[in-house]
Amino acid sequence: MYNYKQLQILGIRVIDMKVGIIGATGYTGLQLVQLLVRHEHAELVLATSQSYTGKKLAAVYPHLAGVEVHLETYEPELLDRCEYLFIALPHGLSGPVVAEARARGVKVIDLGADFRLDEAEVYRQWYGSAHSHPELLAEGVYGLPEVNRDKIRTACLVANPGCYPTSALLALAPLAGQHFCKMDTLIIDSKSGVSGAGRKLSLNTHFSEVNESFSAYGVAGHRHTPEIEQELSKLFGETVTVSFTPHLVPMTRGMLTTIYVSLVDNISEDRVRRLYQEYYQDEPFVTLLDPGQWPQTKYCYGSNKCFINLTVDGRTNRLVIVSCIDNLMKGASGQAVQNFNIMAGLPEETGLANVGILP
Amino acid sequence: MYNYKQLQILGIRVIDMKVGIIGATGYTGLQLVQLLVRHEHAELVLATSQSYTGKKLAAVYPHLAGVEVHLETYEPELLDRCEYLFIALPHGLSGPVVAEARARGVKVIDLGADFRLDEAEVYRQWYGSAHSHPELLAEGVYGLPEVNRDKIRTACLVANPGCYPTSALLALAPLAGQHFCKMDTLIIDSKSGVSGAGRKLSLNTHFSEVNESFSAYGVAGHRHTPEIEQELSKLFGETVTVSFTPHLVPMTRGMLTTIYVSLVDNISEDRVRRLYQEYYQDEPFVTLLDPGQWPQTKYCYGSNKCFINLTVDGRTNRLVIVSCIDNLMKGASGQAVQNFNIMAGLPEETGLANVGILP
Amino acid sequence: MYNYKQLQILGIRVIDMKVGIIGATGYTGLQLVQLLVRHEHAELVLATSQSYTGKKLAAVYPHLAGVEVHLETYEPELLDRCEYLFIALPHGLSGPVVAEARARGVKVIDLGADFRLDEAEVYRQWYGSAHSHPELLAEGVYGLPEVNRDKIRTACLVANPGCYPTSALLALAPLAGQHFCKMDTLIIDSKSGVSGAGRKLSLNTHFSEVNESFSAYGVAGHRHTPEIEQELSKLFGETVTVSFTPHLVPMTRGMLTTIYVSLVDNISEDRVRRLYQEYYQDEPFVTLLDPGQWPQTKYCYGSNKCFINLTVDGRTNRLVIVSCIDNLMKGASGQAVQNFNIMAGLPEETGLANVGILP
Amino acid sequence: MYNYKQLQILGIRVIDMKVGIIGATGYTGLQLVQLLVRHEHAELVLATSQSYTGKKLAAVYPHLAGVEVHLETYEPELLDRCEYLFIALPHGLSGPVVAEARARGVKVIDLGADFRLDEAEVYRQWYGSAHSHPELLAEGVYGLPEVNRDKIRTACLVANPGCYPTSALLALAPLAGQHFCKMDTLIIDSKSGVSGAGRKLSLNTHFSEVNESFSAYGVAGHRHTPEIEQELSKLFGETVTVSFTPHLVPMTRGMLTTIYVSLVDNISEDRVRRLYQEYYQDEPFVTLLDPGQWPQTKYCYGSNKCFINLTVDGRTNRLVIVSCIDNLMKGASGQAVQNFNIMAGLPEETGLANVGILP
Repeated sequence: MYNYKQLQILGIRVIDMKVGIIGATGYTGLQLVQLLVRHEHAELVLATSQSYTGKKLAAVYPHLAGVEVHLETYEPELLDRCEYLFIALPHGLSGPVVAEARARGVKVIDLGADFRLDEAEVYRQWYGSAHSHPELLAEGVYGLPEVNRDKIRTACLVANPGCYPTSALLALAPLAGQHFCKMDTLIIDSKSGVSGAGRKLSLNTHFSEVNESFSAYGVAGHRHTPEIEQELSKLFGETVTVSFTPHLVPMTRGMLTTIYVSLVDNISEDRVRRLYQEYYQDEPFVTLLDPGQWPQTKYCYGSNKCFINLTVDGRTNRLVIVSCIDNLMKGASGQAVQNFNIMAGLPEETGLANVGILP
Repeated sequence: MYNYKQLQILGIRVIDMKVGIIGATGYTGLQLVQLLVRHEHAELVLATSQSYTGKKLAAVYPHLAGVEVHLETYEPELLDRCEYLFIALPHGLSGPVVAEARARGVKVIDLGADFRLDEAEVYRQWYGSAHSHPELLAEGVYGLPEVNRDKIRTACLVANPGCYPTSALLALAPLAGQHFCKMDTLIIDSKSGVSGAGRKLSLNTHFSEVNESFSAYGVAGHRHTPEIEQELSKLFGETVTVSFTPHLVPMTRGMLTTIYVSLVDNISEDRVRRLYQEYYQDEPFVTLLDPGQWPQTKYCYGSNKCFINLTVDGRTNRLVIVSCIDNLMKGASGQAVQNFNIMAGLPEETGLANVGILP
Repeated sequence: MYNYKQLQILGIRVIDMKVGIIGATGYTGLQLVQLLVRHEHAELVLATSQSYTGKKLAAVYPHLAGVEVHLETYEPELLDRCEYLFIALPHGLSGPVVAEARARGVKVIDLGADFRLDEAEVYRQWYGSAHSHPELLAEGVYGLPEVNRDKIRTACLVANPGCYPTSALLALAPLAGQHFCKMDTLIIDSKSGVSGAGRKLSLNTHFSEVNESFSAYGVAGHRHTPEIEQELSKLFGETVTVSFTPHLVPMTRGMLTTIYVSLVDNISEDRVRRLYQEYYQDEPFVTLLDPGQWPQTKYCYGSNKCFINLTVDGRTNRLVIVSCIDNLMKGASGQAVQNFNIMAGLPEETGLANVGILP
Repeated sequence: MYNYKQLQILGIRVIDMKVGIIGATGYTGLQLVQLLVRHEHAELVLATSQSYTGKKLAAVYPHLAGVEVHLETYEPELLDRCEYLFIALPHGLSGPVVAEARARGVKVIDLGADFRLDEAEVYRQWYGSAHSHPELLAEGVYGLPEVNRDKIRTACLVANPGCYPTSALLALAPLAGQHFCKMDTLIIDSKSGVSGAGRKLSLNTHFSEVNESFSAYGVAGHRHTPEIEQELSKLFGETVTVSFTPHLVPMTRGMLTTIYVSLVDNISEDRVRRLYQEYYQDEPFVTLLDPGQWPQTKYCYGSNKCFINLTVDGRTNRLVIVSCIDNLMKGASGQAVQNFNIMAGLPEETGLANVGILP
């Protein structure tokens, strides 16, 4: 299968890529639909749902009136329709689907957690059950384009990063190789909108319990911790252990992460700032804000953007970094489409040009 | 000046229309920017601001990082850059700008209230001061495409409807000419998100005063009342007087309008429903929902859509109609771009294809 | 059993009334607990729960740390502990409990819908099943103190009004007997916070679906309609039929109702305003606001207050009335405590002196 | 002047304390009014306002209908009416009022920042101007009752703590003297509702800018930093420097603080937990939650409570502590009333018995 750029060089008109979504009615599945139906080079040929099979998507989500997508029950044979497959299932369920897709030559972007951790044993420790397809773990490429773009280009299975890891890794990646951070002092304090908890009903997402309330949860035990540590360890070339605390914000979308790290000696803020500017200068989706202008999650509401700012606190000799993303976009489905674009050789911003919705 | 369709027939490649925005940093101005910078056939060549002149737009709105728009002080000569001009000023201020633009052959879409009312005297009564350019009133076309599309096509000055009138008129237009509504029983009860009050600071829009609070305001005295009555009177061919009450909802975007009207005799809900289906079947932005599925403002968050449903209440022999829009999109800037597309001969959905952002 | 006032006259020190709550962990039950544990003359001796039986209430609601209430499974014998019983169960379930309580001489305030309608047949029509104890209907007194205070004083079974009916009836009661309203033109458009839907999980109360969205529901078919009509018919001495539409506001607490009614001839606003002032001048919980100051639900957040304002619209000869309450207080548990105070001969504001929580 | 307890011992019936509020219409002033008008042993004899002088308080805040408080312009002579004075002014303004009050023998609780810092020079560094009355600094007692109760009892000038310092200090106080925390590793990450920014209009508190957005601000430079450091240094007997980051949560009330500190060696969570239980076992307003039950700001909405939980993260050998308060109650006016109660010899919970308002 040639990709878009190769076809262009050959002078061949681009045919839309045929894509499918497994789990199209959860929030990340829905966000994928919203992106893919207006994507210039994707044709949505498969959308499955366990709860709403047989229905039209617009019957489940009336705002999609006019979008002709029929929800089907997942069957392996249906995968043959697709060139690329997005999997938006709860953790623990994507293994068999990935195996089928790969067997049929379908490239996969898995939005769940199952192929993000390199070690089946680590998966078992944090997710509480054995991995269903440990033999496929080696094939998975961690889909953070700003770090792994080259590997993603040729990958057949991309493990789309978690929302918390995305916000933390983008905030820390430019520091890799600089050796001025004491990596054992890393504190990652994250705050997420409620949509990150998905569409499953629970008291934790019941309006009258969540509204006008801010809370901590999963303190020192959240499953995104090993994912963050694994990728930071690779980036920094040493074993990194972090304190990570997620919090729930009474808003639907948005995630902001505040990171604290001690510096080995006097490093000027200017020097750190230049590092970030260089690292992200050609990145379409990551912006370092001007000094003093701190990220607000609204800046990336509905877009695939990540905004970052930082300061060096001379009093404590700590670097403080703040990043924000839309947890359903750069934190999930937007990044998945970005990965698809890279895999398919398409311009990376295809279907992701939304500049945001303010106010 | 040829429009896009005429150029197509002549086989001429479409050049982007040069457009300007007067008042680019208020909320409707910002929404225009967000739509126009990704519009396939518009080039934003002018953006003025009184408060932020000299700055880059991205310095005021950091989420627009990468958008190269410089804010200028309005000067009449600047209008010569534009073929189409969007005016997003508070009421009372657009008269002189419109006069200048027209004198220079620039077509205008005015998002303010100044050219919506046909009679200068009615304007004076409801807005409390004399109209600055009554001689231009006759030129203004009321820019509700679903009702006035043909006039808009050839208009040089389009008065973009108010948000409340848009939600009410779309909900009532299909009934015109049917003679089964007692038009003197019309009650219009509307609810708007806070962004409708703009970016100007006030206790009424101060977070801690508004949040977790729902209120009525302007009861029996809101300035959109004569606009609604004027357009309904034209549609129904009789003088229509309405009770209109606006309310403030603790959310940023969205508007929902509930309308009550007594019926002259037994009219079946099916008959009314068919009327609406026929009226809106070819309209890209208006959707009649299935029976029992009532509009939620979230259905149109960030899109130019309007959702409508209705029921005939046999117990009271009243028709109840509910419509919703995004007040900054179909209620303001989205509709303005729709009008621009029509005036420019472009496909009406150009730049407005967003299917919405849920959740 | 003597009540507080009689005991005072006899010079007897008041012993706390022993009260119980059936269904103490739903939102109205919880609000009752919050009121009763700091009520000067009530001792909470019984709190039942189906879901959390055997637990301490503070284990379910950690903010109640220090409140020593143990949740029990309902058994008829437990009622013998109580002098007064509050029932906060879903409709259809209170019948047997009321029968038991009455048989044991326990006075009852039922917060559910089962004893509000006078006719078992009307109940069946709107609630879809036969009433379990139609023989008790005649004993129920409709617990709206501002209208029925005398009957409540001597009642053994008080049917605590619904939230929507409370907001509508308080807004209309002063007009009874005036004969200047065309009662067949009554439109009642209500807006409620989400806590009105209770603690039961549902997509309609799932944060990410409700937040930043305003919707209509139950148009022309909500179960509070016959309750409103029944009480208005009694008040006005004629059969009243209304159009009633409830809406959902993205906030936890608060309810605002906008009412439209045509006037028979020219009635001055002053005259109507005086009527309301006189009607409510001695009422501790109802306030007519100054002209132009429209109700905001925040005014009654957490208090038992109702705020009302009105205007006569000369253009349409309609009276527009707006009222607001806290749906869990004056719309449910606050009013229940007010009824309890009246039944027990206590000062009506006992335990309800909260002036509200702003901002 | 005798206090309540001394009078009780003498068998003298308690006369209400006469109290005044300087700055009664800002949010902390308003919260004081709401608490004091229902306080059993306080009589509000003075309420000043710059913006609304001459008006009734209920004209500014209609929900206070029935509360007879007239707003006056501050004049030193008015202080003679009061025994106790609450000052709720922006920083930099309370100096002269305190001086006048003290000269007239009026005891003062200052809710502003001016008398919290011991050193005039530190004040100048962080607040940017010289302190107006450095000679009074020594008289100020830091009004955190759980730490300084004895000093408060006999104080004439209490500096009511800031909201952020209150949430941080209550979370850390039980660790003082234990010597197992590496105090140079202290990270304090706080999140506050918007009411903390007061009633002054600003884009940062404009509904449409703040709603559905979470942001960091004042990173490494917030004025509460030296206050936290000063009090921690006293508590721990060493110079403590902290990294402190405040954030803004899209909700009106509530504050949650997450604290990270490295431990010197293996300290069991049980041991730490017991410390907290002992430290707070007799405190009416501080509750250590059960293991795994993390604070939610809603737990203390409208009450003077503080909820705390903690964990020892064995992987990083860090102690993570989370606390929450209502920023206007325990973080400001509730704590001020608590201090008043202590100074006046009243039971500490007088007027503060509210168990919270959920949902």
